[in-house]
Amino acid sequence: MGDYLTTPELLAGERIDQLYSQDIKIIQSPQVFSFSLDAVLLANFARSPAKRTGLMVDLCAGNGAVGLFMAPKTRGHIAMVELQPRLADMAKRSVTLNHLDEQVTVYQQDLATITDQIPKDSVDVVVCNPPYFADLPASKKNPNQYLAIARHEITTSLETVIRVTSGLLKMNGRAYFVHRPDRLLDLTTVMGRHRLAIKRLQFVYPKPGRDANIVLVEAIKDGQASGLKISPALMTYDESGEYSAPVKKMLYGE
Amino acid sequence: MGDYLTTPELLAGERIDQLYSQDIKIIQSPQVFSFSLDAVLLANFARSPAKRTGLMVDLCAGNGAVGLFMAPKTRGHIAMVELQPRLADMAKRSVTLNHLDEQVTVYQQDLATITDQIPKDSVDVVVCNPPYFADLPASKKNPNQYLAIARHEITTSLETVIRVTSGLLKMNGRAYFVHRPDRLLDLTTVMGRHRLAIKRLQFVYPKPGRDANIVLVEAIKDGQASGLKISPALMTYDESGEYSAPVKKMLYGE
Repeated sequence: MGDYLTTPELLAGERIDQLYSQDIKIIQSPQVFSFSLDAVLLANFARSPAKRTGLMVDLCAGNGAVGLFMAPKTRGHIAMVELQPRLADMAKRSVTLNHLDEQVTVYQQDLATITDQIPKDSVDVVVCNPPYFADLPASKKNPNQYLAIARHEITTSLETVIRVTSGLLKMNGRAYFVHRPDRLLDLTTVMGRHRLAIKRLQFVYPKPGRDANIVLVEAIKDGQASGLKISPALMTYDESGEYSAPVKKMLYGE
Repeated sequence: MGDYLTTPELLAGERIDQLYSQDIKIIQSPQVFSFSLDAVLLANFARSPAKRTGLMVDLCAGNGAVGLFMAPKTRGHIAMVELQPRLADMAKRSVTLNHLDEQVTVYQQDLATITDQIPKDSVDVVVCNPPYFADLPASKKNPNQYLAIARHEITTSLETVIRVTSGLLKMNGRAYFVHRPDRLLDLTTVMGRHRLAIKRLQFVYPKPGRDANIVLVEAIKDGQASGLKISPALMTYDESGEYSAPVKKMLYGE
């Protein structure tokens, strides 16, 4: 297995990237799917379950980036759910590449039916980097079908993702989402409908003086709908155009 | 009248403060009511009606700070609505002190009945710095009754303020509110119920690395509930503990 791990089977166009701050390697492909800064931000924003018996689920897992980045921070089990076989296969091979087969399970499956595999009310933490764009006829789809499905609400919807998230979570379990600010009010409305109380938001601004382009959301199942906190403003780049100090730390470590 | 304006009648404990960036003088009293940075932030965030026939209403006007700060930016009429006679009287005297009697009307009245004076669906812009704290029995009231009413939902409620705001506004009229982030979800829910679509939020952070402590909200009556924008993060103080450059500009001008 050692040989396999040092020279894993890569498909055409794939490469191995590394998140240095976590010492995690991840298989990706510019032609198929690569993780974005959003995955790194979500993995840093979310608090993983501390205890060994904890269960975390990564919905819309893509090539597994969020779950892989969080694995070093938890002793609990991680379940990744990804509909697209090509992406789920990349995630599985990355899990093996990082010696995480004991800790991480990849389900290549529609998240709408995931409670066939993972019991309802059994999950401590759900993380999700969902498709950002409503599947409106006017919206310009990505010609790459893998990315189109990952980015647009073609095979799932915010309503479905949040309904499934709430169904999976234990009472007081936590959900962490990353999304675009222009969908924030959809998110608050739909979460409210599904027993998820938003407790914390963090806005990510490309740099000082610019509108936010990313929002991170923490919600608690059956939590009190009060006491919302807005975490410190996070700038992606500083005035000089370099990654800001907090983002550098997420990417490269201290 | 000249003599009166240079030495206006001040009641015991009152003084005249000046917002240098607007060249506006304002009567206040540390014992009764003084405007806070929130009023300055709201006056800068809000866009006043441009045309001379425009009508702007300042609900929960206090000593009139928001309307006074915005007066130099609009040719339209400004109506201030303040329940407390002592505060409305300060506002009236500040209006005179700034030679604004033609442009500004002060109504000492419960905002719940203001449509007796100002017709429904007639207002271009509503600005409001409402009481921040829900009037729960557990909440510790301010021993100063003027401040208690200004800060706690004793004589009005967020629901009432927003219902009245929506009633006053023309279709596509704009509402601007300042509030605490922990009430943001109340604000979005109640505004949604009263035909106010939130279009823009700005979070104000005391300084870099700290949770936001103020949120500014722009909503449009009967606007589309999509396309929310999050304006650039505003820091009150910079790393060195001085007012940040944008706040200095609001307070002292360029």
